[in-house]
Amino acid sequence: MRSHRKVSKLLGAFAAAILCAALLAVRANAQSDPLQSWNDGPAKLAIVTFVKEVTDKSGSKYVEPEDRIATFDQDGTLWVEHPLYTQAMFALDRVHELAPQHPEWKQREPFKAILANDREAMAKFSDSDWEIVVAATHAGMTTEAFLAIAKQWIATAKDPRFHRLHTELIYQPMLEVMDYLRANGFKTYIVTGGGQEFVRPYSQRVYGIPPEQVVGSSILTKYEYRDGKPVLLREPKPFFIDNNAGKAIGINLFIGKRPYAAFGNTEGDRQMLEWTQAGDGARLMMLVLHDDPVREYAYGPATGLPDTKVGTFSQALYDEATSKGWNVISMKKDWKHIFAFEK
Amino acid sequence: MRSHRKVSKLLGAFAAAILCAALLAVRANAQSDPLQSWNDGPAKLAIVTFVKEVTDKSGSKYVEPEDRIATFDQDGTLWVEHPLYTQAMFALDRVHELAPQHPEWKQREPFKAILANDREAMAKFSDSDWEIVVAATHAGMTTEAFLAIAKQWIATAKDPRFHRLHTELIYQPMLEVMDYLRANGFKTYIVTGGGQEFVRPYSQRVYGIPPEQVVGSSILTKYEYRDGKPVLLREPKPFFIDNNAGKAIGINLFIGKRPYAAFGNTEGDRQMLEWTQAGDGARLMMLVLHDDPVREYAYGPATGLPDTKVGTFSQALYDEATSKGWNVISMKKDWKHIFAFEK
Repeated sequence: MRSHRKVSKLLGAFAAAILCAALLAVRANAQSDPLQSWNDGPAKLAIVTFVKEVTDKSGSKYVEPEDRIATFDQDGTLWVEHPLYTQAMFALDRVHELAPQHPEWKQREPFKAILANDREAMAKFSDSDWEIVVAATHAGMTTEAFLAIAKQWIATAKDPRFHRLHTELIYQPMLEVMDYLRANGFKTYIVTGGGQEFVRPYSQRVYGIPPEQVVGSSILTKYEYRDGKPVLLREPKPFFIDNNAGKAIGINLFIGKRPYAAFGNTEGDRQMLEWTQAGDGARLMMLVLHDDPVREYAYGPATGLPDTKVGTFSQALYDEATSKGWNVISMKKDWKHIFAFEK
Repeated sequence: MRSHRKVSKLLGAFAAAILCAALLAVRANAQSDPLQSWNDGPAKLAIVTFVKEVTDKSGSKYVEPEDRIATFDQDGTLWVEHPLYTQAMFALDRVHELAPQHPEWKQREPFKAILANDREAMAKFSDSDWEIVVAATHAGMTTEAFLAIAKQWIATAKDPRFHRLHTELIYQPMLEVMDYLRANGFKTYIVTGGGQEFVRPYSQRVYGIPPEQVVGSSILTKYEYRDGKPVLLREPKPFFIDNNAGKAIGINLFIGKRPYAAFGNTEGDRQMLEWTQAGDGARLMMLVLHDDPVREYAYGPATGLPDTKVGTFSQALYDEATSKGWNVISMKKDWKHIFAFEK
């Protein structure tokens, strides 16, 4: 009896130990995959391989921590950009809000189309139409006043399809890449064609990226005194357009170091990726392809669909990516989850 | 006997303990003064008081670490600016070096005066003269080529009076302030009227400030392909002048946060200090006064000497400093050592 009890006790302890070990292994496994929302595949492999190479001190591709710079486009790379860039939605909302102070807008394009909610006309807006809208909605106030306006909007405005805050429409896999890179000594930057001062109010909270690591387009500001206190007044004139070649120029201007990794999704990111690749050693260039019409959107020739004005990913860009060894991320195939709320 | 021995042993141990405690106290004292090159006085006290206030979690003036931003002008605030700004000396050297490729310069001002070493004429150079010199010496090459040129010059060129590298003419007390601020969670930035790409090659080595924390003036760059590889070509046209109001604008543009501490020494820093002070809570505004003709230089009305074109510190600026509670640092009285090589 006694030895039986001993054996059964031993077996019990043994079973408990095995269970415990198994649980620990599961936990360790979960902890050891920082890219949990990614399916195994070439995109995930490219990221992990790159990070291993640049952090391996004994390898030939080792990069000193202070040089580990990674840049991320925002619209369509970090969050949803369809049917319209988030900041464009902000501008349209502002037009409606400011309309009572501008009765002349009812008869003047492009405001007339906006106030009439004429989606067809808006879809055809030229760059100069948008410039007029931005000038009317993003300027004429101090930087502090604009910050408050942008903050308030981003905290309340909802996406028309998902009925969620825009900051909930961030791609979970990209947040994981950012965290993974930072855990490996990278400094992460947003390099956006969008307005720098539009993104800065939420960049820390949403991406863990401080305002000083947000590079974007900007408008002229003017130093003035109001009630004896200095203010910076936002003028209705662009100062710097951080898109296309502007992304390489902006990176050099604001960071002064060449990125080792760059993530984009459109024509506007082409030069950022070229500029990244032109450096020595291991470099990671990735483009997000929107090919999941069910969970998000699908657009562009690489998906078999026509080019789109918002987030253009042309066949030429796809060909450049293929010929230069840039990695195209398929949202459909590479991403287990797109949004955190799916889980 | 035995108890005597015991007592003497005890006394010996006691004496050793006291000596040890005293030595530790001395060491602790040395360690506890991070501003060793500063004499006790109002300037040092202002710095220490400010740091204590913003880092005291229980106090009303506590500042979160991510908001602890300190900005430093370079010329005349961090290193010697007389008889001429270091970058101006670099430009003059470049004119001599490039002269064989420009035979027309011998007959064309402002080059003629430079090539003839006409100091009197050079002292009268207007802003537009300097613009011509900068365009001729700082543009027409890629950003990488310029980096190499600037790096090479700064590694070899010597100051005419001290016969030392310019990077040896950094003010030791200011290095201590930077270290002290960083040790207390501050992110330190250079905000210079000088060229951003001139300062970046040595900022990490000399100040412990990485290139991405150097904000300065810049010229236009253009994205081009050479042998299929992208380059940024420096164009002979200013893009951003980071001086006067440009310093407040540049801080907002590049950092997007208002500094809690700002250090300058001339008219060009006025708006940076005003912008800093316009924030809430504890703010530290300091101006270095060059009043030590023996160890460095003396210039400006506040020293009883006339205004100077290089590093202008007018009576009006001194009056603003006094009325607004900005701290004027007397190099003569406040600095025990000016340069590291003095020690």
